[in-house]
Order: sequence, then C-alpha cells, then structure tokens
Amino acid sequence: MKAFIYSGINQQKIEDRPKPSIDKPSDAIVRVTKTSICGTDLHILKGDVATCTPGRILGHEGVGVIDAVGAGVSNFKVGDRVLISCITSCGKCEYCKKMMYSHCTDGGWILGNTIDGTQAEFVRIPYADTSLYPIPAGADEESMLMLSDILPTGFECGVLNGKIQVGNTVAIVGAGPIGMAALLTAQFYSPSQIIVIDLDASRLAMARQFGATATVLSSEIDAKEQVLKLTEGKGVDTAIEAVGIPATFEFCQAIIAVGGTIANVGVHGHKVDLHLETLWDKNITITTALVNTSSTPMLLKAIAAEKIQAKKLVTHHFRFDQILDAYDSFRDAAKTHALKLVISMQEPG
Amino acid sequence: MKAFIYSGINQQKIEDRPKPSIDKPSDAIVRVTKTSICGTDLHILKGDVATCTPGRILGHEGVGVIDAVGAGVSNFKVGDRVLISCITSCGKCEYCKKMMYSHCTDGGWILGNTIDGTQAEFVRIPYADTSLYPIPAGADEESMLMLSDILPTGFECGVLNGKIQVGNTVAIVGAGPIGMAALLTAQFYSPSQIIVIDLDASRLAMARQFGATATVLSSEIDAKEQVLKLTEGKGVDTAIEAVGIPATFEFCQAIIAVGGTIANVGVHGHKVDLHLETLWDKNITITTALVNTSSTPMLLKAIAAEKIQAKKLVTHHFRFDQILDAYDSFRDAAKTHALKLVISMQEPG
Amino acid sequence: MKAFIYSGINQQKIEDRPKPSIDKPSDAIVRVTKTSICGTDLHILKGDVATCTPGRILGHEGVGVIDAVGAGVSNFKVGDRVLISCITSCGKCEYCKKMMYSHCTDGGWILGNTIDGTQAEFVRIPYADTSLYPIPAGADEESMLMLSDILPTGFECGVLNGKIQVGNTVAIVGAGPIGMAALLTAQFYSPSQIIVIDLDASRLAMARQFGATATVLSSEIDAKEQVLKLTEGKGVDTAIEAVGIPATFEFCQAIIAVGGTIANVGVHGHKVDLHLETLWDKNITITTALVNTSSTPMLLKAIAAEKIQAKKLVTHHFRFDQILDAYDSFRDAAKTHALKLVISMQEPG
Amino acid sequence: MKAFIYSGINQQKIEDRPKPSIDKPSDAIVRVTKTSICGTDLHILKGDVATCTPGRILGHEGVGVIDAVGAGVSNFKVGDRVLISCITSCGKCEYCKKMMYSHCTDGGWILGNTIDGTQAEFVRIPYADTSLYPIPAGADEESMLMLSDILPTGFECGVLNGKIQVGNTVAIVGAGPIGMAALLTAQFYSPSQIIVIDLDASRLAMARQFGATATVLSSEIDAKEQVLKLTEGKGVDTAIEAVGIPATFEFCQAIIAVGGTIANVGVHGHKVDLHLETLWDKNITITTALVNTSSTPMLLKAIAAEKIQAKKLVTHHFRFDQILDAYDSFRDAAKTHALKLVISMQEPG
Repeated sequence: MKAFIYSGINQQKIEDRPKPSIDKPSDAIVRVTKTSICGTDLHILKGDVATCTPGRILGHEGVGVIDAVGAGVSNFKVGDRVLISCITSCGKCEYCKKMMYSHCTDGGWILGNTIDGTQAEFVRIPYADTSLYPIPAGADEESMLMLSDILPTGFECGVLNGKIQVGNTVAIVGAGPIGMAALLTAQFYSPSQIIVIDLDASRLAMARQFGATATVLSSEIDAKEQVLKLTEGKGVDTAIEAVGIPATFEFCQAIIAVGGTIANVGVHGHKVDLHLETLWDKNITITTALVNTSSTPMLLKAIAAEKIQAKKLVTHHFRFDQILDAYDSFRDAAKTHALKLVISMQEPG
Repeated sequence: MKAFIYSGINQQKIEDRPKPSIDKPSDAIVRVTKTSICGTDLHILKGDVATCTPGRILGHEGVGVIDAVGAGVSNFKVGDRVLISCITSCGKCEYCKKMMYSHCTDGGWILGNTIDGTQAEFVRIPYADTSLYPIPAGADEESMLMLSDILPTGFECGVLNGKIQVGNTVAIVGAGPIGMAALLTAQFYSPSQIIVIDLDASRLAMARQFGATATVLSSEIDAKEQVLKLTEGKGVDTAIEAVGIPATFEFCQAIIAVGGTIANVGVHGHKVDLHLETLWDKNITITTALVNTSSTPMLLKAIAAEKIQAKKLVTHHFRFDQILDAYDSFRDAAKTHALKLVISMQEPG
Repeated sequence: MKAFIYSGINQQKIEDRPKPSIDKPSDAIVRVTKTSICGTDLHILKGDVATCTPGRILGHEGVGVIDAVGAGVSNFKVGDRVLISCITSCGKCEYCKKMMYSHCTDGGWILGNTIDGTQAEFVRIPYADTSLYPIPAGADEESMLMLSDILPTGFECGVLNGKIQVGNTVAIVGAGPIGMAALLTAQFYSPSQIIVIDLDASRLAMARQFGATATVLSSEIDAKEQVLKLTEGKGVDTAIEAVGIPATFEFCQAIIAVGGTIANVGVHGHKVDLHLETLWDKNITITTALVNTSSTPMLLKAIAAEKIQAKKLVTHHFRFDQILDAYDSFRDAAKTHALKLVISMQEPG
Repeated sequence: MKAFIYSGINQQKIEDRPKPSIDKPSDAIVRVTKTSICGTDLHILKGDVATCTPGRILGHEGVGVIDAVGAGVSNFKVGDRVLISCITSCGKCEYCKKMMYSHCTDGGWILGNTIDGTQAEFVRIPYADTSLYPIPAGADEESMLMLSDILPTGFECGVLNGKIQVGNTVAIVGAGPIGMAALLTAQFYSPSQIIVIDLDASRLAMARQFGATATVLSSEIDAKEQVLKLTEGKGVDTAIEAVGIPATFEFCQAIIAVGGTIANVGVHGHKVDLHLETLWDKNITITTALVNTSSTPMLLKAIAAEKIQAKKLVTHHFRFDQILDAYDSFRDAAKTHALKLVISMQEPG
C-alpha cells in the first residue's frame, strides 16, 4: 500500500509498505478513505517530537471502512464505516476507567507517533472497540473527519475546560484550526460574546463568518484595551489559548476577568510567566489538557443534529497522491488560508 | 391609582387604591409600565391559593420605572428602568445566602399573593436592591417583562434542573407558556432533539415555530411509542413536566431514558404515582422547584446578545383598562392561543 | 466443584457441578475464597426475580484467586488475588463509556442471576479486565469482600447520589446491611448529623456504634417529629431510603428539607405515592440507582487508608459446607442480628 | 477606646481612639472580645500593602458582642455574640450575588486595610447582616475566632479549590497557619494521604499531630522524589501552595499528578515560572483565590459537630495590652512555633 513516511528531519516521502495485519485480538484494520494533516505532523517533520522516529507512517486523523477485525472486537464488523479517534484507548487501565483516555497506559496519542498512522491506504487500530466510532447512516464523511482530533480538542480542552456558560464572554486567542474548532463548539453554550484575537486579518474575517461576535488584531498596541472595552473593563470569563507561545498565554492573563478561566489548548515548547503577583487574589482557574476524545459521542450527536457545521473547517481538498502538495499548502497557511485539508484515497475499483 | 383586585372566589374588579409608599428603608416604589398575567393568577381567582386573601392587588410580573427609594436602597435611583422579579429576596437570610431566593424567610413569592402586586399603576417592592434588576440601555421592554417569571421558571426549573446537555434528547410535556419558555431556553444548550407533547395541535404548531424538532399529540394512543421511536427506543435524557397533573407526570416516567432526569415545573394539586417498581434501577433523577430567579442576570445577558427571542412568547397586547378582557383571553387560551399577554399602563402626561 | 443452587421457588441445594472454563478471550476463572449472601439472593429463592431461572448457581459477591485467564485478559494473571464486582462491565458499550456499568448492554447484574455466580468453588467472570479489581498487598480479605456490592451500593446510590456535604444533616431510613453501608461511607464527607431510623432497637444500637449521631424508632408515632426536632424543624438535607417499601419512601418525603435530596437505594416491588402537591415547590431532588461499582477504585484506596472500617459489617462467619445455615441466619436477621456473612471456602491442599 | 495602630513603615503603637459609631443603616458596632494577628498584618507593617495607610487600626479577625445596630440591620440585635468575617459583603452587588464576596464592589477585604479593623475594643462593621455570623449557643469562642479568616481561607482556597476527594492524595506545601488550616479541613473529605512539606522540622512534627499522614523536609535534595515515592511515582492529586514564593509554586508543579489540581493559597509578590512545556498535556488545573468566606455557614456547622478541632490552631494567648508582645511572638514564629494567637480584651465590669 501507499503511505506517507517521516524519514528524518525535514524529510518525507510516499512509500510502498506492506498492508498492516491484525496483531492482537483487539485490533482492527481500517481501509482509510479520508485523512488530514495536523499541526503536530509539521512538528514531527521538524524533528520536534522525540517519540516519533524516522520510518514512521504519519497521521492520526481519518475515516474509513473496517477491513478486518481481531477475534476480540465486538463493536465492529468488516464493512462498517468508522471514525478513527486520534487517541487510542484500551478501556481498561486506571486512566481509561476515569475517561482520561489521553493518558491510557497502553494508548493515548500513539497513531502516527509511536505506531504507524492514518496517512496510508490502511491502518491498524489497536483496541478498536474503544478507539473507533461508528459513522451514523447518512453522516457526511468530511464532517466526521473533523471529529478525529480538531473538534474534540477545541471542545474539550477549550470549551469544556473553559466552563463556557450562557451569557458569558469568551476570548479565543489564535484563529488557526484549533481556535476555529473552539469557536464553533463554544456556540453550543450560547455565550453572549466570542472575541477572537489573531495576528492575521484574513483569519479574523473567517472567524467572523464562523460566529465570532468581535475580532481583535493582536498586533495592535491596544489589543488588550480593545478586549477590556468590549467587556465593560472586566475582561473575559473564559480565555482560550490556542497558539502555544508565551506571548499568547501572557495575553490571556491580561484579559481574564475576576473569577474567570484560562483554558490552555496550545502545545507549548517553553515555560511561560505566570503573574501570580496580580492573579493570586483574582479567583481564576487555569487548565491544561491533551484531548481525551471522551466527548466524541456527544459531538457525533450534535453534528448529526446540525448544531454546528463541522465542514466549515475544511478549506482544501487533495487526492492522496497529492499529499506532498497538501503538506505544502498546510505549512503555508498564512498564504493559502488553509484550516483543515481533506485528503481522499482513491476508491478501490 | 387603578389596581386589579381579587375580591373573592371568582370575583375580580378594577379599583381605585392609594398609591403605595415606602415602608422600610429597603423598599422601592415602582411605577409599572407593563405587567402580565400568570396561570397562578387564575388559580387565585378560583380560590385555590389559601395565602392570597380577598382585597389583594394581583400580579407578580412587571417592568417599570423607579418612583421612590428607601434610604437603604443603593442599587437604584428614581427614574431607573427596572425589571421586577416575581421572587422577593432579602439577600441576607440562610436561603438567600445559598441563592435559594424562593425560600427567602422574608420574601419568596409574596407579590400579588401576601402583599399587593404589579397589576396596578404603582407597586411597593420590598428589598429592592435584591429583588429588582436594572434594564439595560436599549433593551426591549416586552422581552424584559418575560424575565419577571416565565423565562427564569422555564429555564431554572426545567432546563437547568433537567441538566440538558449538548446532543441529548429532551421532551417537554405541555406547550403552555411554561413549556414554551423551557423550549426557548433549552436551545441554549444545543440538545439534538426537543420533542414537545401537548393535547392541542395548534400549540404544537407553535412549538415547531419555537424550535421543537418534533411534536406529539398526547391524545394519541401511541404517544409514548412515538417518543420512544424518535429516540431509538431509549426514551429521552430529559423530560420536563410543564402541566401539573398526574397524567403528565406519569407520561414523563414512561418516556425517561436510563440515566435521565425528570424536571418537574408544573404546579401540582394532587399526589402522583411514582413507579419505583420500574424506576428503582434506572438511575434517574427527579427534581421539583419553585423558581429562584437566580438566573436572571444570566438571562439578561443572553437576551441582550439575542441568544433567544423572548418576545416570541408575547401573543396578545392590552391596555390596563382592558385587563378584564385580558384575563378572559388568557383564561380561554385554547381558543385565543394566548401564551403571554402584555398589559400596558398609559404613559403619564 | 461444589455450588449453591437455586432449584425452584423456595428450593435450594448444594450440588456438584463441573468447574467452569474460559468461553471467550475476555473471560477469567476465579477460584473463590470467600463469598457472601445478599438480600437479592433471598428474593431469588422466593421466586421474585424472573430473570433468574432454576438451576442457577447464586451469588454476586466474592473474593478469590485467578485460576485461568482468556487470551484477551491483560490486567490479571493466574495467582492474582481479586475482588469480584457484582456488576459485570464490558467497558466498551455506550453505557460503560459513560461509567454506567449497571446498564452495560452485555453485562450489568448478571452474576448469580442470568449466569452462574460466586457461591461456588469457581466462577467464570466475563470481561475480567473491567469486572475484577486487584486486591492490594496486605489488604484484609473480609473488608475486600464488602466491596463486591454492599459498600459501593451504599456509597454510590445513597451517599454520592444524596450529595452529602460537610456540615449537612442526613437521615438513613433502614438499618439493614445497605443502610449500614451508607452509614459508614456517609462519614467520608463529615456531615454534622446522621440520623438512622429503623423498626428494630437492636439495629439502632448497632447504628450508634457505626457512627449514627442519633437514632429514631420508626414504630413510634412521632418518628417524623423526632427527626424534625433534631433538625431545628427543617428536616434533613439528605434522606437515604434503604428499605424498599412505600412506607419508608413516604417517610423520606415527610422529613426532607427544602433543597434536599432523597436518594433511593431500596429495591421496590410496588409503586409509591409521590406528594408533588407539597413537594413541587420545595426544590428537592429524588434519585434512583442500581450500583455501577464505578466507585470501587476510590473505595479500595479509602479502605487501604483506613478511612472506614469495612469489616464492621461482618457479623457472622460460615464455612461453605454450612451455607444452608448461613442462609437461615441471614433470613432470620431480626433474631440473629446478621448484617453481612463471610462464607469461606476450604483452602485447597 | 484602645486600638492597635499602623503608624508608618515598621511603626506601630497602641493608641486611644474614639469609639466608632453607626455611619449607615446597615452598620453594626461590635465590642470585640477576642482578636488575632494574620500574616497580612505583618505585611502591612512592612509597608507592603499600598491600600493600607498610616493611622489605620489593623485587624480583620475577631469575635465579639453586638453593641449597636443601624436601622437597616435585621439579623442581629444588641447583645448577640458574633463572629466577624474578614470579608465584608454588601450582599447586593454583581459579585455578592454570585457568592464571590471577596470581590464585593463595596466590601471585600477592607477591615484593617481601608477601614479601621478589629484590633481595638470596638469596631464598626459595614453590611453587618451579610458580614457577621451569629455564634451558636455553647460554641467555643476561640474556635469561632479561627473562622474569621484562617479556616475559610484554608478550606475554600486550598481544599475546595483543590477538589480533594475520598481516597485521593494531597500535598500541602507550607506548614504555617494557612497550611495547617488546609490540613485540618482537608480531612473533611477523607483523602488517603496528606503529605505536608516544610523547611521546619518542628512544624512538620506539629503537622503529624494535626493529621498529616507523611511529612517531607523541603530542604532535602530529594524532597520531590520523596513525594513521588509516597505516591507510587504518580505525584499527588491535589497540591496546595500555602507559602507564596516562586520556589514553592515550582515544587507544586514538580509533584502534581496527571489530572491533578494545584490550589494556590499563598500571597505572591512576584511572578512565577509555569512549566507549560511539560504541563500542557497533563490535564491539570491551577486555581488562585482570595477567600470569600462563603463557606462560613458550613464550617460553623462542622465545628459545632466536632468534625475538626479548630482550637488546635491556637498556640499562644495574650491580653490586648500585650499586643506588641503578641506581634513579636507571631513575627518570630520560627522560634516561638506560633500558629494562631488569641488576643483577649478585658471583660468590661
């Protein structure tokens, strides 16, 4: 089969690989029909992710069709359409029993990281019963693809951790794919304001189309004052950090209201300053999180009921034989305005 | 001043009364600009409410303008536009400190019940600082009137107690004003289905306009089966009882899913059967509630942000000198299709 | 092997049966070292439990040692000491993923009900990885046995559902094994009062030894008044129904405070009266529940840390060849003062 | 009357001052019977608290007897024994309505800060109805004094924010008065371990007497490893920072388990490093808080029921004419082992 390979720092290629097979009774083999690219894939290619070694098939997002199941798999059978979760969950360790699947002792984020991933014609999914989800009849496949990672990440790490409430004010710092996923899912809870902050005016324009009630260019000197002005000088009840650098986390601290919550979603490579000298008595909460995809069943229902339009996140389409172009387009998002890409396998036949 | 008086069982009249005056430093006098009629007012007129004695000015809903304040009032001054809560809260008893204002030891539902109410040109509001809310600049007065009672009741007793969650299924049993208020505010939380059940097809048509995803005529023999069919045989995650008779509470028990919640909003005059022989192991929750209006600040923000259209609840308009007609219209809702009425005072001048 | 058999209404016997073997890869065979008898076993013998047919080995409580594991079992190996949960959980159905194991679509309460149970020398446990718990080194085996059913039932259905809070008042209606389990675990949350109500003075004496701050004989005419007097006329914040008959559920309604919670733990065979005509505006909550044993990991840690003395529940000891006597003793609890029995298998050798 | 005055940086004295009088109808005058000294008082004397200007009577802890009430006070009458909360709450602003009394727009921490405080024979308490609590008949006055500040601070900011749960592991970093208050109140929730960390071995000895299950000298090179070893290498579920310097906050980050909570209680004067580069995917929560004293009613009940021995916190006693010695003793806690002091007024007569 064809597969996209990380073959060393800044090196990548499409390669022929043997089709994976069932290793353990709890495995399933999925024929991938659509996959996508995540910011983390770019980090791997730059050599930033030590756990991912050269030779690895990348990708942790995908939808497809069950091709084979191990003897222990009972939720799925050959031919079922499935959604692949970016988080593998054994369903029986200490953490899985607490619904903290991202810390599964034999799973977590392993696809396209410590085991081969979804940017290939087939992928082996360990613990299939607890790591795959059935795609409801009639569901749109591209919307489902958005459930592999981006939507549960924005929702769980940003919206749920941020405790967004009816009538409250929300700021989303960063209008990349994750910020946009938070923006879409924040609207489940009817906040009165969602202010999106980013360096890029075209992303802010897109944010307004996605439901932002106001946008602020973070390059402007008075960006903080603009947010405070929009919130009667109080700051926001929830600030979602969706970038992953010290400056944006700092900005969140500057605009958080008394009693508010800063929900960190960004992947950080460096420590940040926490201004306890001003925050110690402000009764705030800060959360960090790797997505558990524990909200996937809820999101499946919400998308089926058209409570959000997940497909809005899809900006570009590629065939799998164009995946190198797809990576270029995603890497160059400032120019291409890419959010999420859909990479389609050729249908067999 | 003119006032609407309960003068004995099935007796009512408009009467001249002295304008009320400040009794305690925490009082305010409000010049009423708009008031409304609640189902409870009809109960009083039928003699069902023992605490309300003949001679009482009825009404616990209203918006108006501050006419006078006691020495202890600090949140309001003469001329301020205010929303009158149906619940009077002292702000300092054991219950108010727990935000259970409906059980305030010197307040609760007293307006138009144990003290004179809002169906008059002026009304004295005890504990004004904690029982009135400022009307935001630019807010629509009719929408605000819906915040006196009907919206917080539907929201707190139905939606919040019912723990409505994103993607879940909801049934609202009864499409009167309270059921409709629950229907509007349930949408804050993006459930996947809201099924409304009522005896009256015209109310169900209105429910569909208000956002119901499905409706069921409760007179039909298979009403229960229809709800089960709509929910894959599981029943609903939340059932809101918005009528107040044994049959509707029974219906809620028949359609509740494992793990679900029955939120009782209806005012009941008789005991009901609780089928613990089938429910004991279904892990369900049942709640009862008198509205606390603790959600009013949240609802004010949500309405200002146009998250719901409160005004949809208003079906009829009357001048205060037509209040007897208004009562007739409200009483005869089956014919008039009345939900909430707005009764306007003549502007002074 | 020897096994205790339900062989028809009011018929029981010890019988030789073949040792069970692994059916599915997720199975384990446990050599039982200790088992116990539950009130439900008595119900089965009386013919009250339709799902349990003659010929069944009874019992859903037990501790033991792993004798064999299927190929898919990864949490346990032969020789491990284990606690058997009364609830079998597949870990991968819709309900298990929500931690509602009692409603597992391929499990729930099946042991000693729809499949053979623990009152035997060996028992087959389906879904062993998610239905067994490792016994910590040094743990007391009799305390562990109390974790199969009685303690998680009292804790989850009574204490957690009852939302017991620091400083609050609690009533436990019924001082049988379940009531006593609720009494022990209620103390985790430091309520100011725990009032136990029962018909039997000797049980009440035992309740006082277990930590009840007050006891009330339910046969006394003024039982309700006694509870109200102990709570300044307000009633209790939490009432735990631990009997399962209409009279005790009625009593809970009579003593519940405004804003309180009635947590039903009893198994009911008949409908009850729910007094919505007085409760509708009292802002109360009623819960029903079958135990999920989702709290077992928490309880294991609490017992290891000696936060409660689980062993207090054990009143009688029997050898397995005396199990008919054990049943008699448990059936005649009024005389024998039995709470929980420990029935020990003879050690092999 | 006699009063303790902050008269400039490192300057203090006892002075004669006029007895305070009622300014507003919501005021009460309390004759102080016992007061205490808080770490914040030392900060004021060092000039660290800009809001507190020379000439101020210090003190925000106290118990006493109502000497006079304004016309608007209804919860108290002359002669009532009362507990003075360190937080003044108007009961009617946006924040008070959300139970965030520490951010009251006309209150918060003002006693002995922006208005005269409790280290005097009499003190004026604004918003008496919502800022004082009745002392229950028979209650011990010294225990009650611990409710002015230290116990609600340890409980709300440490224990409640730290979400301490039955069976969980807790670390308290800092064994001063606040750490000890957290240690006492943490036991309400039956954690399996409470590990106390401090530089001072004598404080750790005291912590073990107060209920710590283990103690660690923070000066030891392997302090972090000791905590990890005590928790099977996982770290603690809750870490309570009770010092207020960067090193202790850093330590909390080093020992927090996946999914855990760091509850900051310390008053910080400098920013700290937050290691998002390691914490971003650990699903942790960090909270900051100024005490709201919203838990005072709950703590009053818990102390009345002897769920904790509040009096343990009292290490030293002084008469008010010895208050300068009391300050010396408190300042020199390393030598005197002072936790909380009781400073008694001479009874009139």
